[in-house]
Amino acid sequence: MINVLRLNHRIERDKRLTTHVALAARAFGADKIYYSGQRDKKFEESIKKVVEDFGGSFEVEFLGEPLKLIKNLKENGFKVVHLTVYGAELKGKIDEIRNKDILAIVGGEKVEPVFYKLADYNISVTNQPHSEVSALAVFLYEYFKGRKVRFGGAKKVVIPSERGKVVKS
Amino acid sequence: MINVLRLNHRIERDKRLTTHVALAARAFGADKIYYSGQRDKKFEESIKKVVEDFGGSFEVEFLGEPLKLIKNLKENGFKVVHLTVYGAELKGKIDEIRNKDILAIVGGEKVEPVFYKLADYNISVTNQPHSEVSALAVFLYEYFKGRKVRFGGAKKVVIPSERGKVVKS
Repeated sequence: MINVLRLNHRIERDKRLTTHVALAARAFGADKIYYSGQRDKKFEESIKKVVEDFGGSFEVEFLGEPLKLIKNLKENGFKVVHLTVYGAELKGKIDEIRNKDILAIVGGEKVEPVFYKLADYNISVTNQPHSEVSALAVFLYEYFKGRKVRFGGAKKVVIPSERGKVVKS
Repeated sequence: MINVLRLNHRIERDKRLTTHVALAARAFGADKIYYSGQRDKKFEESIKKVVEDFGGSFEVEFLGEPLKLIKNLKENGFKVVHLTVYGAELKGKIDEIRNKDILAIVGGEKVEPVFYKLADYNISVTNQPHSEVSALAVFLYEYFKGRKVRFGGAKKVVIPSERGKVVKS
């Protein structure tokens, strides 16, 4: 089971980025995204609409207090993986992490030191500045070894095609 | 050589997303990003600042007319890879693409049919809705087989660390 926690969402600044984080989380195999910061019902609805159309059981939930979730999941055997450009290299850690239940944390402009401390792993996908979207996507891609994720109950299914758009509905 | 083309940048709507696309392009090994749509000097400067601080020779350039670039690069032996959720699966194509000079194209809210047509490859990283940031990052990650990219002449170097932030400058 893979949960994602996106910290410090700001409606104005982050509306599209947090949507991209959530979509990448779903597309690359996470089960649920939690987010803290400002509650954003429009964001939640846009993700629920994608799930309705494209299937699967991905969930989204706002959290007033992310620390409680972290402690709770840790008590339930989850490993907390904080994705940060400052962290240890993914390559050296992924075998240890793979197949464990995971809470993957991504910032937020600034991540408070407590998250570095509570994390079982502070992991960098690259030590160059990039994006929480790419960090999460590549992390999940490696976690699942590029394996395709299945989405049941879809109203719309995109059929891979060399030319044009083929959508079965 | 890997160039990226980000289509239809809108300053208000896309400012942070296009920045994330460019940072992911650089971090995962592209040489240059072109973008079309609205010219955005603030975006360009933010990327130049990252290159100045963190090294390498990544470039950013605005294009009034992206079709010219595509034709020009094709004439010079580049393969045009349009990343789209509708495309053929990456897994089946990546071996054919790897080690070629590439122009990787990412949208933009809507991508006009001409880009599907001009592309040598329309490729999907996943057929689920996600993000141009994750599509580009995973594509480049696969292209380079996860190999770390080197950035010479950096003022700041992040040293991978299990706890806290270590930056050599």
